[in-house]
Amino acid sequence: MPKNVKPVYYGDYLQLDKLLDSQQPHSKMYGPEAHDEMLFIIVHQVYELWFKQVLHELRAIYKEFRAEQLDDRALQLVAHRLRRVLTIQDLMNDQVGVIETMTPQEFLEFRDYLVPASGFQSIQFKELEIILGLTRDTRIAFDQQSFYNRLNDEHRTYLEELETQPSLFDCVDQWLSRMPFLQFDDFSFWDVYQQAVTDSLDRDEEIIRQNAADDGQLETELASLQVNRDNFSALFNNERYKSLQEDNRVRLSQRAMLSALFITQYREEPAFHLAHQVITSLAEMDEKLTIWRYKHAMMVQRMLGTKIGTGGSSGHDYLRRTTEQNRVFKDFFAMATYLLPKSALPELPSAVRQALGFYFRHDD
Amino acid sequence: MPKNVKPVYYGDYLQLDKLLDSQQPHSKMYGPEAHDEMLFIIVHQVYELWFKQVLHELRAIYKEFRAEQLDDRALQLVAHRLRRVLTIQDLMNDQVGVIETMTPQEFLEFRDYLVPASGFQSIQFKELEIILGLTRDTRIAFDQQSFYNRLNDEHRTYLEELETQPSLFDCVDQWLSRMPFLQFDDFSFWDVYQQAVTDSLDRDEEIIRQNAADDGQLETELASLQVNRDNFSALFNNERYKSLQEDNRVRLSQRAMLSALFITQYREEPAFHLAHQVITSLAEMDEKLTIWRYKHAMMVQRMLGTKIGTGGSSGHDYLRRTTEQNRVFKDFFAMATYLLPKSALPELPSAVRQALGFYFRHDD
Amino acid sequence: MPKNVKPVYYGDYLQLDKLLDSQQPHSKMYGPEAHDEMLFIIVHQVYELWFKQVLHELRAIYKEFRAEQLDDRALQLVAHRLRRVLTIQDLMNDQVGVIETMTPQEFLEFRDYLVPASGFQSIQFKELEIILGLTRDTRIAFDQQSFYNRLNDEHRTYLEELETQPSLFDCVDQWLSRMPFLQFDDFSFWDVYQQAVTDSLDRDEEIIRQNAADDGQLETELASLQVNRDNFSALFNNERYKSLQEDNRVRLSQRAMLSALFITQYREEPAFHLAHQVITSLAEMDEKLTIWRYKHAMMVQRMLGTKIGTGGSSGHDYLRRTTEQNRVFKDFFAMATYLLPKSALPELPSAVRQALGFYFRHDD
Amino acid sequence: MPKNVKPVYYGDYLQLDKLLDSQQPHSKMYGPEAHDEMLFIIVHQVYELWFKQVLHELRAIYKEFRAEQLDDRALQLVAHRLRRVLTIQDLMNDQVGVIETMTPQEFLEFRDYLVPASGFQSIQFKELEIILGLTRDTRIAFDQQSFYNRLNDEHRTYLEELETQPSLFDCVDQWLSRMPFLQFDDFSFWDVYQQAVTDSLDRDEEIIRQNAADDGQLETELASLQVNRDNFSALFNNERYKSLQEDNRVRLSQRAMLSALFITQYREEPAFHLAHQVITSLAEMDEKLTIWRYKHAMMVQRMLGTKIGTGGSSGHDYLRRTTEQNRVFKDFFAMATYLLPKSALPELPSAVRQALGFYFRHDD
Repeated sequence: MPKNVKPVYYGDYLQLDKLLDSQQPHSKMYGPEAHDEMLFIIVHQVYELWFKQVLHELRAIYKEFRAEQLDDRALQLVAHRLRRVLTIQDLMNDQVGVIETMTPQEFLEFRDYLVPASGFQSIQFKELEIILGLTRDTRIAFDQQSFYNRLNDEHRTYLEELETQPSLFDCVDQWLSRMPFLQFDDFSFWDVYQQAVTDSLDRDEEIIRQNAADDGQLETELASLQVNRDNFSALFNNERYKSLQEDNRVRLSQRAMLSALFITQYREEPAFHLAHQVITSLAEMDEKLTIWRYKHAMMVQRMLGTKIGTGGSSGHDYLRRTTEQNRVFKDFFAMATYLLPKSALPELPSAVRQALGFYFRHDD
Repeated sequence: MPKNVKPVYYGDYLQLDKLLDSQQPHSKMYGPEAHDEMLFIIVHQVYELWFKQVLHELRAIYKEFRAEQLDDRALQLVAHRLRRVLTIQDLMNDQVGVIETMTPQEFLEFRDYLVPASGFQSIQFKELEIILGLTRDTRIAFDQQSFYNRLNDEHRTYLEELETQPSLFDCVDQWLSRMPFLQFDDFSFWDVYQQAVTDSLDRDEEIIRQNAADDGQLETELASLQVNRDNFSALFNNERYKSLQEDNRVRLSQRAMLSALFITQYREEPAFHLAHQVITSLAEMDEKLTIWRYKHAMMVQRMLGTKIGTGGSSGHDYLRRTTEQNRVFKDFFAMATYLLPKSALPELPSAVRQALGFYFRHDD
Repeated sequence: MPKNVKPVYYGDYLQLDKLLDSQQPHSKMYGPEAHDEMLFIIVHQVYELWFKQVLHELRAIYKEFRAEQLDDRALQLVAHRLRRVLTIQDLMNDQVGVIETMTPQEFLEFRDYLVPASGFQSIQFKELEIILGLTRDTRIAFDQQSFYNRLNDEHRTYLEELETQPSLFDCVDQWLSRMPFLQFDDFSFWDVYQQAVTDSLDRDEEIIRQNAADDGQLETELASLQVNRDNFSALFNNERYKSLQEDNRVRLSQRAMLSALFITQYREEPAFHLAHQVITSLAEMDEKLTIWRYKHAMMVQRMLGTKIGTGGSSGHDYLRRTTEQNRVFKDFFAMATYLLPKSALPELPSAVRQALGFYFRHDD
Repeated sequence: MPKNVKPVYYGDYLQLDKLLDSQQPHSKMYGPEAHDEMLFIIVHQVYELWFKQVLHELRAIYKEFRAEQLDDRALQLVAHRLRRVLTIQDLMNDQVGVIETMTPQEFLEFRDYLVPASGFQSIQFKELEIILGLTRDTRIAFDQQSFYNRLNDEHRTYLEELETQPSLFDCVDQWLSRMPFLQFDDFSFWDVYQQAVTDSLDRDEEIIRQNAADDGQLETELASLQVNRDNFSALFNNERYKSLQEDNRVRLSQRAMLSALFITQYREEPAFHLAHQVITSLAEMDEKLTIWRYKHAMMVQRMLGTKIGTGGSSGHDYLRRTTEQNRVFKDFFAMATYLLPKSALPELPSAVRQALGFYFRHDD
């Protein structure tokens, strides 16, 4: 191979001439350079590089989900790449600590020169959100329109186009819905399962009645338990499930939700191992993104107090509000509400277990 | 020295016989041991050990603040120990990742045996909150009374006693109020300063008007700017400041707030270096505690969905609500709202600078 | 269930009376308490708690490997628990930063009262090393005997007994040796593979000759390449492989090594997914332990310079020397030397691929 | 201000057109793109961006040290910026985990296309080493010349020029040497101090004799103790100190070493607070760099086993060897050898303490 390969020089390979020439502090244009503007620029550039890498992985994952079929070799690749995204997210979350080494005053030395630039204008980040499956109607109000007004036409058109494509969320939903585990002849799994969950919710009610600190709490807890009962029974009732979706209480389709439940319950089954890893990683990705938004919000508050951001809106509030709402795979979290301990789990008929095992045992 | 020192054996020194004999999974009392209960126990025990260490540091810091005078040697010790607390907090925040290696199902295997035990019953954690300065009226509703009902008498009495003591917050407030920097003859610092801040708020208004994405946003932003103007001018008006305090909009006393502002503005002055470090560390401690509550809330949701916790209340909601409200040193964050860039800062008269410098220059 | 469960109180469940009563600074026995001795005690106690948890996981994993057969459900459990161990190790590695908040002088305030206690006397840590598979002859000289002299009889006997048991390393070796993937009729995998590796080593030689900075380097690199050639061909020659083992150049048995290579090369095969995860996790466990030893050594040097430790030996040197040598799964690292890019990999006959796939496809 | 400021757009400010156009996988030039080459490129580019930021801070620090005088305002800035560098280093060390999500095989898919590029060719990293104070004769053999041969002329000339400048190490040495704390009339500090250290080394000898596990260890430990005695007494003997320097056993000048010792011993003195922070941060910077080299070496071994790197030399060995030797501020570590507990410290005459305190007490 190396024969026909032309020799490579480190700096050329990484295009360091361009990369290291892309930091131009604006303070210099109006007076002496503010020492800390360099940090501000580089921290944001590093985030953009990581965004590019995360998008690189997500697009590859997306492609697998869009393919004719998603066999286990592909699924393994998906799981492997999702784990990589999670590792990068951990780093991005810790990186908030680097920008926090800048004091509010050091920031004020150049902040006014950045107006009206704003993190809202990071196209890659919006792209990330859209690919994951954040849609206008699931975004917080501000995100639904007004931030689009800040983008140049090229960027706005690009993102609006992207919003018309199916998202990773949609792909995952279809993939889960396709799963054939929901009906097995002579295996009334769901009846047994519903009974078991109902029993466990009854136990919860008992616990509440025995331990409520006062009437107020008793009432609140019983009410939220009732919500759980309703949501659960809705899982088995097309009509009621639809209305849950309309109220944005669940987002996954009914079939996908049931498959996800089944896979999570029987994750020890070899055939579910990868699928369960993928589901868990998607939930973790959501969680880490949420923590990033949260730490980011804290950092902005620390830097600006309740001052407005360079974009002309108080970033701190904005970020705080998105933290909770801009979540895509929340259903996977909520699912824990209906999980049973292994001990309380209906035994799978051996035919089914067999079907879920390996044809080939490497320890025979 | 070693002459009269009796030889020490590692295991005896650390009392490992007791320490490693304190893990008794309850699942064993009702059936086969749930493998993961050990993790659950040890993770909580490690937290309790860190709480003990943090309390050890906070009490020592507290003692310095309560002393006759707090000279720079003492202040340095305070700063040093606060930094240690921050390091421990980082570890405690990362530790959430360890408990997250337990799946919801693995937790359900023993969860029912823990009823009605609950993290609310961690006396050391409540002690930590109280020493920092969390008071009943600053707590969220649930914390104000009902969790006390869950404690045994000894613990309840102990905490209620503790609540009658001055907190670290109170000490810090008094220490800041004592500072003499607020009046210097012939140095109209505060007039100059107020003018400068007003100018900067005017610039903010301009930015808003130039960049608001739409009328809705314009209105919102101008409103929040007005709040900043009001809060700021209140800093110099005893009456209005009192009312801000009554509405829980600020907690620090007026003098303390102004000292904190002055110190932060002139942090480069040698005499302020330590004081500024202490203020910053206290704010960071608050921030890290907030992030711990937040990650903790995410973890509970992931483990239980919207199920109730073993204590009979949905811990996830509880933790989420405390995240924002149970903050003690929030004022130090808000302060950034009124900070000026060094360039816009009134020059200190040389007499004052001299007073804030070292008598002794080790680079003469 | 909860009916017959007796109510649990948080503090009783965690046995906090014992746990939080196990910190007795010795400085108090000889004068005023050294403030930082508490940190020293608690940091070590936390390590001991984590050691207990890691041992809890390793023993469970060990049990699976010792069982009649290790089916995929079991293997998944093994992989899951190894990941947990890795997460705990990350935390233990970061924890070094907490002890580093103690200055050398703060340590000297109580160091003399600890003589001759020493970390060598942590039975759980030695147990951990032995269970993993660290044997006397693979330990560094000092570890082979003299540290045993520091233990009380009970502990020495316990560890010496333990050394007679098969270790996790032995189990993993047997498990890999059992694998039937090494002979498939009409599939001359190993011949094809050897040829491919030889080609790649030839390419390396070319690279060396083209790029050696000078003759000295050329010689060194060609020599180390020759070592790789010899080691590789030894993999297929019982006699020469045995001699590599006798020189402690490899530790895995020949069959195990070849299975590990095969699994790593074809990790995308569903049937290998879990096995590959286990191999990788074991290598990472080794790596993280090594990094812990290294950071630990740095910390000791920082605390004591080249002073001796309380145990009467210079811990810094000791730890530094163990860092490299006390590794158990080093062969998994070295393996990369013989890996081929997927593109250069001999295609598996469809019969074999079929055998390695799932009987059941959940995306048909 | 904002009036005359021209509006800024996020993407233009960060020059994302250039930044995000600098990733060109070479595998594409010879066949299908290797998915993981993007990760490889971006990880290295992020490192280069952080190097640029660290150099930005170090040059600013360097400038302060080179200035006419280094007053406390400047020293505070130095301490602040060193802390920032440490925070960035932590992130760089964790970043190794991201590249480790690439399997050896995934790397082999494109490795051959990178020949003979090599990390040795990172000019910024070499610059970092040189600015800190790594000189040819303190480097490991390989670094002394042969890697220069891999650089293009422009880069080689640039670095060789840089090597003729005084380094940060030199500046720190001069700064410490300038300190006047070494002679105070009627204060025989150093006599008292030498006696106290000798006593403590005698105690160490006692500990060794009482606890040596066997004769071999006894001998070794006594020998290394003797080395400490010799090195220590050399601190007060110009001739012998010079010879220690010639043997590369110490690098700091004698005066600088004594100042550093004095400052570390009396760090509680307000006037030493900043100086001590700077010394500690420099030592930590060295330590974190060492850990980065170490983790980096582990990662390379994992990726290539004992295969040669793309640069044609086995990077793993190289990095392992530099880990220990390429350290600049090692003397600050070794210093702990001669530290005394506060209790054993000679009391400073009040005249001296006064001199080291603040003229102005803000808690009177």
